[in-house]
Amino acid sequence: MEHTVIFQPSGRRGSVAEGKTLLEAARELGVDIEAPCGGARVCGKCKIKVEEGVFQKAAIDSRVTHLSPLMEEEKAFLKAQELADNYRLCCCAGVRGDVLVFVPEESRGAKQVILETGRERIFELNPAARNYYLEMDPATLDDQTDDYARLQAGLAAKYGLPVDLRIDYTVLQSLPVAVRSEQWKVTVTVWEGKEIIKVTPGHWDELWGIAIDVGTTTVVAYLCNLKTGEVPHTTSLMNPQIRYGEDVLSRITYGMMNEDGLEKLSMAIIDGVNTLVERLTEMAGITRVDVVDMVLVLNTVMHHILLRIDPKFMGRAPFAPVFKTSMNFKARDLGIQIGKGAFVHTLPVAAGFVGPDNMGVLIAEEPHKQDRMMLIIDIGTNGEINFGNRERLLCTSCATGPALEGAQIKFGMRAAPGAIERVKIAPGDKEPKIKIIGQDDWYETGDEPIARGICGSGIIDVIAEMFKAGIISSSGRFNKEASASRVRRGADGKMEYVLCYAGDSSIGQDITVTQKDVHAVLLAKAALYVGARYLMQKLGVSKPASVTLAGAFGSYINKESAMVMGMFPDCDFDHVQAVGNAAGDGAKLALLSLAKRQEAREVAGFVEFVETATESDFLEQFIAAMAFPHSKDRFPSIQHILENIP
Amino acid sequence: MEHTVIFQPSGRRGSVAEGKTLLEAARELGVDIEAPCGGARVCGKCKIKVEEGVFQKAAIDSRVTHLSPLMEEEKAFLKAQELADNYRLCCCAGVRGDVLVFVPEESRGAKQVILETGRERIFELNPAARNYYLEMDPATLDDQTDDYARLQAGLAAKYGLPVDLRIDYTVLQSLPVAVRSEQWKVTVTVWEGKEIIKVTPGHWDELWGIAIDVGTTTVVAYLCNLKTGEVPHTTSLMNPQIRYGEDVLSRITYGMMNEDGLEKLSMAIIDGVNTLVERLTEMAGITRVDVVDMVLVLNTVMHHILLRIDPKFMGRAPFAPVFKTSMNFKARDLGIQIGKGAFVHTLPVAAGFVGPDNMGVLIAEEPHKQDRMMLIIDIGTNGEINFGNRERLLCTSCATGPALEGAQIKFGMRAAPGAIERVKIAPGDKEPKIKIIGQDDWYETGDEPIARGICGSGIIDVIAEMFKAGIISSSGRFNKEASASRVRRGADGKMEYVLCYAGDSSIGQDITVTQKDVHAVLLAKAALYVGARYLMQKLGVSKPASVTLAGAFGSYINKESAMVMGMFPDCDFDHVQAVGNAAGDGAKLALLSLAKRQEAREVAGFVEFVETATESDFLEQFIAAMAFPHSKDRFPSIQHILENIP
Repeated sequence: MEHTVIFQPSGRRGSVAEGKTLLEAARELGVDIEAPCGGARVCGKCKIKVEEGVFQKAAIDSRVTHLSPLMEEEKAFLKAQELADNYRLCCCAGVRGDVLVFVPEESRGAKQVILETGRERIFELNPAARNYYLEMDPATLDDQTDDYARLQAGLAAKYGLPVDLRIDYTVLQSLPVAVRSEQWKVTVTVWEGKEIIKVTPGHWDELWGIAIDVGTTTVVAYLCNLKTGEVPHTTSLMNPQIRYGEDVLSRITYGMMNEDGLEKLSMAIIDGVNTLVERLTEMAGITRVDVVDMVLVLNTVMHHILLRIDPKFMGRAPFAPVFKTSMNFKARDLGIQIGKGAFVHTLPVAAGFVGPDNMGVLIAEEPHKQDRMMLIIDIGTNGEINFGNRERLLCTSCATGPALEGAQIKFGMRAAPGAIERVKIAPGDKEPKIKIIGQDDWYETGDEPIARGICGSGIIDVIAEMFKAGIISSSGRFNKEASASRVRRGADGKMEYVLCYAGDSSIGQDITVTQKDVHAVLLAKAALYVGARYLMQKLGVSKPASVTLAGAFGSYINKESAMVMGMFPDCDFDHVQAVGNAAGDGAKLALLSLAKRQEAREVAGFVEFVETATESDFLEQFIAAMAFPHSKDRFPSIQHILENIP
Repeated sequence: MEHTVIFQPSGRRGSVAEGKTLLEAARELGVDIEAPCGGARVCGKCKIKVEEGVFQKAAIDSRVTHLSPLMEEEKAFLKAQELADNYRLCCCAGVRGDVLVFVPEESRGAKQVILETGRERIFELNPAARNYYLEMDPATLDDQTDDYARLQAGLAAKYGLPVDLRIDYTVLQSLPVAVRSEQWKVTVTVWEGKEIIKVTPGHWDELWGIAIDVGTTTVVAYLCNLKTGEVPHTTSLMNPQIRYGEDVLSRITYGMMNEDGLEKLSMAIIDGVNTLVERLTEMAGITRVDVVDMVLVLNTVMHHILLRIDPKFMGRAPFAPVFKTSMNFKARDLGIQIGKGAFVHTLPVAAGFVGPDNMGVLIAEEPHKQDRMMLIIDIGTNGEINFGNRERLLCTSCATGPALEGAQIKFGMRAAPGAIERVKIAPGDKEPKIKIIGQDDWYETGDEPIARGICGSGIIDVIAEMFKAGIISSSGRFNKEASASRVRRGADGKMEYVLCYAGDSSIGQDITVTQKDVHAVLLAKAALYVGARYLMQKLGVSKPASVTLAGAFGSYINKESAMVMGMFPDCDFDHVQAVGNAAGDGAKLALLSLAKRQEAREVAGFVEFVETATESDFLEQFIAAMAFPHSKDRFPSIQHILENIP
């Protein structure tokens, strides 16, 4: 006997044989319901609400009778209110008549999830790694089926996975003990529906991944809960390769000049990744082997070096990378110590130095889905600039140097406790106000002196504020007439600004901003500005509809400071947005959603790389862009600020 | 303009555009022609014979004009006689009219090849690893395509390989240098048409693989030329695991009793495999990285241990193996030092202790393709017995012990120079004749004394001959009345037969056969006999149509000796055949032919495992089988021999 079953909100319907559970019915009708235990009635995830038990109007009141009676497990998992509202577990409720059920958001297999960063990023949670709970019949003398085949058959029958599902070699090695530890009950972690990458004895309800943004200067790692899309822990460190060179070209050179240069560079960053993995797993109270997936974003040179692929041919014409496509590597092949069978996914390279990190920015910001012409700048030691919309999208890269990440700055540091991240300077007495990472409010004399240095966002702030306060001129030179005790000659006889006196710092000396620091920041911002101008010219656009500022800063960059500095062509203030580490967000999205990995592959084929450094007037443009904006015509949006500069 | 092209002997025909080469025509029409250089005109392999140039009778004489003129390359590669016979190279000859060509055997992509062992084994040469020669356009500023995509595109265009062809990670690492070493000319080794496992700069015409039979006692390795099917070098060694136990059960026990037991056992055999690889590559004057494929056959316990998979659950009920399917592992994951990207293929397990080695025997002997009821015995420390035909095929295993491989025998040794491999004993004076490995003829007093011990085939010979000469009785006991100086009491007071006096040996002492040796051999042969009887009973057959004796002996086992000993149920003498190492042959076949790997998977599903040691009358049958045959009724085929025994 068959009954009609309808699932809402998808509206999928069909005939289902009497006695089948709603979970079986859902599978038959292609409705994706969250049931990590596979219907073993141990997880309580497959809640649905019975809307109608029959479709003849007269019989609506008898709706609950169209399903089998409530089971003990349902009473245990469902709250009183849920029971009153006719909630059931799909794995328990057997079909005995026509039913219409509603699948609430949290019970849907593919969920819309919001990534909680500076801006809302809504995506479908569909990670590469998924857990499947399985109870198998034990091996007997009459059934000597081998462990692997038993596992494959169980997964195929219960979850429709391929009968010839692959298994990682290291998982095979642990298989006999794993299946027997909990009486043939296991949780199987499967990668992309293709390969068994972990077998955990018993019912195991956790699923962890790590997304890492490997910057030239800063490396940031995010621990992601692949079941919920949450990102409970984040940590970062200085790229350990920095001792071999501060920018990508110097590292390429180091790799070429030293016999084992590439190996050393690669080992340095792999060690760094392993340190981050260790920290994150400690924070979460889990172990390395609980991490079953990883996504890396990085620029193309970092990408090649981390994979121990010689980047030297990228450093000279014709600059061809060794590979551009997205790729899955076994973590163990790379020396990354996470789950033994786990994969590491790298996003695709767009071109030349525009690497997987920019692909991360693009899948996070999605300019290829917009009508408006977006300018997206990812600020780092290597800056990436994107301009365009769904019609056409251009990208380029520029060597900004590490100044904006706190390196090559006298008191620069990465965004970590003790870093000055916000600065305001009073135009009159030139006295600063500072905000320090690790302290909730702005610093007041008398607070615990914890300032150790200045991170990227603080550097951009202080330079912009020094300009606004008349401490430096539009050319970036110290204004010798600026009469304030904090504007002084340093021990080297050169001008400097004291941002924080020794007494207010934890390092026992004054934290200052030097002429050299100002120069380094202006070089960086000029490179970004010029790159953006070229892309806009190429598309014949004089003003972007919006500007997005991304970068692995501690807090978000102050967009006013960036505008005052002239880091990018003029745009309405309201349409400038600082979004934090968009590349890192892209890495998280790719970790949490296979659709985002696919999107990255598609965008990699869509975005066009533009070589800007070879333009004939590049140097001229670059030098012109070094100054602070003084033309109100070119920067009408910040006219009110420019007017007030002494 | 189109022309009709016909390829013989396949008879494939079709319309081909004017100007295309015959090689392009062949590809379009699905004719597989050997062209490892891919039509670059550098290998000279794609010879064909022009049979008819036109199909209108009147025009037959003008046949050569229907192809483009002879090129210089053809004059270089083709012999004068070939030119006179209208041979052409497919890569050079352009279609200008209708043609009928004949593709000779050696130019066909899939070749029938004969494996040169004791018996002819004809198979289609189609190894998993194949070479593809490619000339690419160099990267330029206008074409910054990455190296990997360039390689994929080239292979897809020229050889029809998938555009998303995978690449091994280690190959990717070497790619930038490999493609640039010889001006973007490379030879790409592709595994199963799915993954790039090696990229060699320039034109590289070699393709090597190694097949290994990992026996409990003896490990034999074969270097195979994957281009020709030839096996130029063979070498062997004692299984280094032997120090941890002489049979599989004692090794399982060692693995269980010692913390790092499994690791030690695994490392021992992996070291052994690496030693064999080193020897074979030295013999051939090649390097380890030239070896691009490997096939392993072994019993199930050896299989699990080598892969570092705990075999302990196989040693106790219900004896389920961890996995049975054939599998491909990265050699580097196993610690096997061959080509960095190479795979190692293991044949499937049939059941329990009947492992990939028996699958090797089956694909070599092919009982599943025969009408006659074949009895196939693979003699080793673990004996495998198969009985059946295309209708039904049974198998079982029995613990024979290492006696037949020369272990647990006082002067036993593996088949190596110095081993006595053949023995005849004169019934009268009991004087022996011996044949020694490393000497062409039978040994004569006065020859250089090189005898060091007795290998498996020699042991079977000497025991059978001692029985025939009346030195031992049908129960295996020394006949104390045997009056001969060589039959004596040893230093331990026990009876022994002197096979080789110290003066004729290279070890400075008499080589003797002891009562214990006789007993060990009779135990082994009884196990094999009883196993075979049970399988025959199961199929209701009293006499096999043929008996095949396989084993990793130095030379083939003497079938008369085996029969006299009663190693298997009676069979017509003419239908008993000793085939040498059939398991090793199966490994070679699987290495040389993907079809054979597929056949092994199918046979693994077809062959039925029979547990014989649990039969109620097993012990009774076993004891009865310990004696030498004395009933002429049960062994009519050797009646003439039994009649003459004193």
